Amino acid sequence: MTKSLTGACLFGQSGGPTSVINASAYGVIKTALEAQEITNVYGAAHGVTGILNDTLYDLKKEDAQELELLMNTPSSALGSCRYKIRDEKELDRIYEIFQKYDIRYFFYNGGNDSMDTCLKVSEYMAKAGYDCRIIGVPKTIDNDLRGTDHCPGYGSAAKYIATTVAEVYKDSVVYDTGTISIVEIMGRHAGWLAGSSALAQLSGTRPDFIYLPEIPFDLELFLNKVGSVFKSRNNCLVAVSEGIRYPDGCFVSEAKPSLTDGFGHAQLGGLAATLAGIVNHRTGAKVRGIELSLLQRCGAHLASQTDIDEAFLAGKAAVEYALSGETGKMIAFERENIDGAYHCKIICQPLSVSANTEKTVPREWINKTGDYVTQEFIDYALPLIQGENSRAIENGLPRFANLRKIKAEI
Amino acid sequence: MTKSLTGACLFGQSGGPTSVINASAYGVIKTALEAQEITNVYGAAHGVTGILNDTLYDLKKEDAQELELLMNTPSSALGSCRYKIRDEKELDRIYEIFQKYDIRYFFYNGGNDSMDTCLKVSEYMAKAGYDCRIIGVPKTIDNDLRGTDHCPGYGSAAKYIATTVAEVYKDSVVYDTGTISIVEIMGRHAGWLAGSSALAQLSGTRPDFIYLPEIPFDLELFLNKVGSVFKSRNNCLVAVSEGIRYPDGCFVSEAKPSLTDGFGHAQLGGLAATLAGIVNHRTGAKVRGIELSLLQRCGAHLASQTDIDEAFLAGKAAVEYALSGETGKMIAFERENIDGAYHCKIICQPLSVSANTEKTVPREWINKTGDYVTQEFIDYALPLIQGENSRAIENGLPRFANLRKIKAEI
Repeated sequence: MTKSLTGACLFGQSGGPTSVINASAYGVIKTALEAQEITNVYGAAHGVTGILNDTLYDLKKEDAQELELLMNTPSSALGSCRYKIRDEKELDRIYEIFQKYDIRYFFYNGGNDSMDTCLKVSEYMAKAGYDCRIIGVPKTIDNDLRGTDHCPGYGSAAKYIATTVAEVYKDSVVYDTGTISIVEIMGRHAGWLAGSSALAQLSGTRPDFIYLPEIPFDLELFLNKVGSVFKSRNNCLVAVSEGIRYPDGCFVSEAKPSLTDGFGHAQLGGLAATLAGIVNHRTGAKVRGIELSLLQRCGAHLASQTDIDEAFLAGKAAVEYALSGETGKMIAFERENIDGAYHCKIICQPLSVSANTEKTVPREWINKTGDYVTQEFIDYALPLIQGENSRAIENGLPRFANLRKIKAEI
Repeated sequence: MTKSLTGACLFGQSGGPTSVINASAYGVIKTALEAQEITNVYGAAHGVTGILNDTLYDLKKEDAQELELLMNTPSSALGSCRYKIRDEKELDRIYEIFQKYDIRYFFYNGGNDSMDTCLKVSEYMAKAGYDCRIIGVPKTIDNDLRGTDHCPGYGSAAKYIATTVAEVYKDSVVYDTGTISIVEIMGRHAGWLAGSSALAQLSGTRPDFIYLPEIPFDLELFLNKVGSVFKSRNNCLVAVSEGIRYPDGCFVSEAKPSLTDGFGHAQLGGLAATLAGIVNHRTGAKVRGIELSLLQRCGAHLASQTDIDEAFLAGKAAVEYALSGETGKMIAFERENIDGAYHCKIICQPLSVSANTEKTVPREWINKTGDYVTQEFIDYALPLIQGENSRAIENGLPRFANLRKIKAEI
């Protein structure tokens, strides 16, 4: 039996926010507050930067009902950061803070960079002989973490994207004069989010083409395909990942005017605006470039209940695994098929599995012509967007968690 | 007592779609299908253009359950148009079609241009001595129709905008490195939509500034204000109406580079991208330009139930008023305060009240410095966004109406 470890718990949020990152926060905080071995529960302000500058919040001083509202509050309630630990001196500083607050449990919620932070802190503490259990809690709308079937945050972003694309489709076909719509979706290196636009087909709509970063982008072929659909049907809807690149590796969004079919402006409006300009120049059609922007990662009103529940359980499991003696691990999801139904099993993986790596969409889940996803992709993503959330509403608007964020004093 | 009039009914949708225009369609269609005097119910394909080219759908052949799904299906199910009647010949043609199908009830759903179409058709039929009852059903997210307290479509767009701005606010404050966010909202001539972003304050968030088309835009003052908030708080959220103009009347979105603070590109990415470029150039801050684009008019998943109900009742009332003998009128809303609660009374107005006019936000509902709305505005808009809709969901996605659209044959 594992030796029981008594001391404080520290939790931090890192990287780009998601609609459900605070559900994981609630999973960690609630479970930690209820654990006998855990003497105090602290939250790091803006992730690891809050540890470095000694700004921790005392989460015992929060109202229980406000904490529960974290389940449906988007973005990072404690503040986030994009900070990679640079040197041994920073690890010394973290060690100092851990000793000051007697941190014996550290949970860090983020993507692959954050798992790397966890790994570094974990290795340092082991070397220092400081008894501390460290578990990473995954989150990323990009779904690009290795070692887990999928990531908390992805299902809600996918639901937002599929719903929005279905609605945009309805809007794009109303005029007999015709429109081409280009919807830009996040995902710099992986096409999981862009691919989720295909789920719209379950509502009787769908993009005509989906372009993922995994496939080199052929502008000429793209223009011909879009032109041809528009000619035959008087409208066309295309989903593009922000990360699509020309065969030479250059991002389409950053390409020089010479590459843009004679269209003479550098664009600041993003990829959708750039492509809209090119397509309009070629076809003469009315073209709308629509960038889903950060709405797709903060649109908690459309968060999938499956995702919310799993995000909460990921946080809860992190604390439970740590209490049972695990450390240097990341929470991960394993998909199980029980009596034909989707089921998500929560496991632990070594942090090294996901730190600083990226999982892209397998080539065989993209169709042969490289402009749509296959049924396998749809079967994979569909269970993750199920369930309508039951968020708190006041005055017709979301009622978000309102934390007091009282600085911890030792 | 009004003479009963027996014959067919024709319904058409016009102008930019909304989240609830099909709820009005359902109000008209359901009530017409149930009326004894109405022999047939036709839908014009793409509004008045479908009348001119004799493409009418036989709505008796639609499945009742699919018709009911119109209540939560965004955009114009019958197709829309932006077509102004040009001459007497077109009115002759409409008369011909009315005679062919024995159209005795005509309902047209749209904005001020569409009310003008109704008026022209109505005057023509009266002159021709053709007995036909013609009622306009208002819709526009812009809320700029005169003669009515507010328009169906506005409340849902306002709810979408306020909810989204609340979520974007949450996202925009997470990093300690700071961000300026500029959210572009529809409304070319009236600031009703941009103003609705202020409702986010009821969720504990809010834009720092709101710029409406009613107030000439002072770029220098804007840059100073945004810079100052950013400096003191490390973030700033601004809502801008797409229709803001410089004092010389030139749209900011279309201004020449010389006007844009030395920033040297013409932009295709819209106003948000243009302003983001200028603000970044001036402050050096990370600036996000977010265009809500057509999501704000088709995001039916966030449609307000109040708006859906009122849109349905507007359609229903149009048929009932026509059956009772009214013609040449537009359905309008009158706000009543019953025991301190908002109540919407449905009345008739002469078509001429709203045809080709625009209602802007009163100056006294905008604050003195011209960069936010007053409490009066909030009190006006808040009741319109109340009520969460109970849309049909299948596979975690909206289940839209799937009409058969069978061409009417005579």
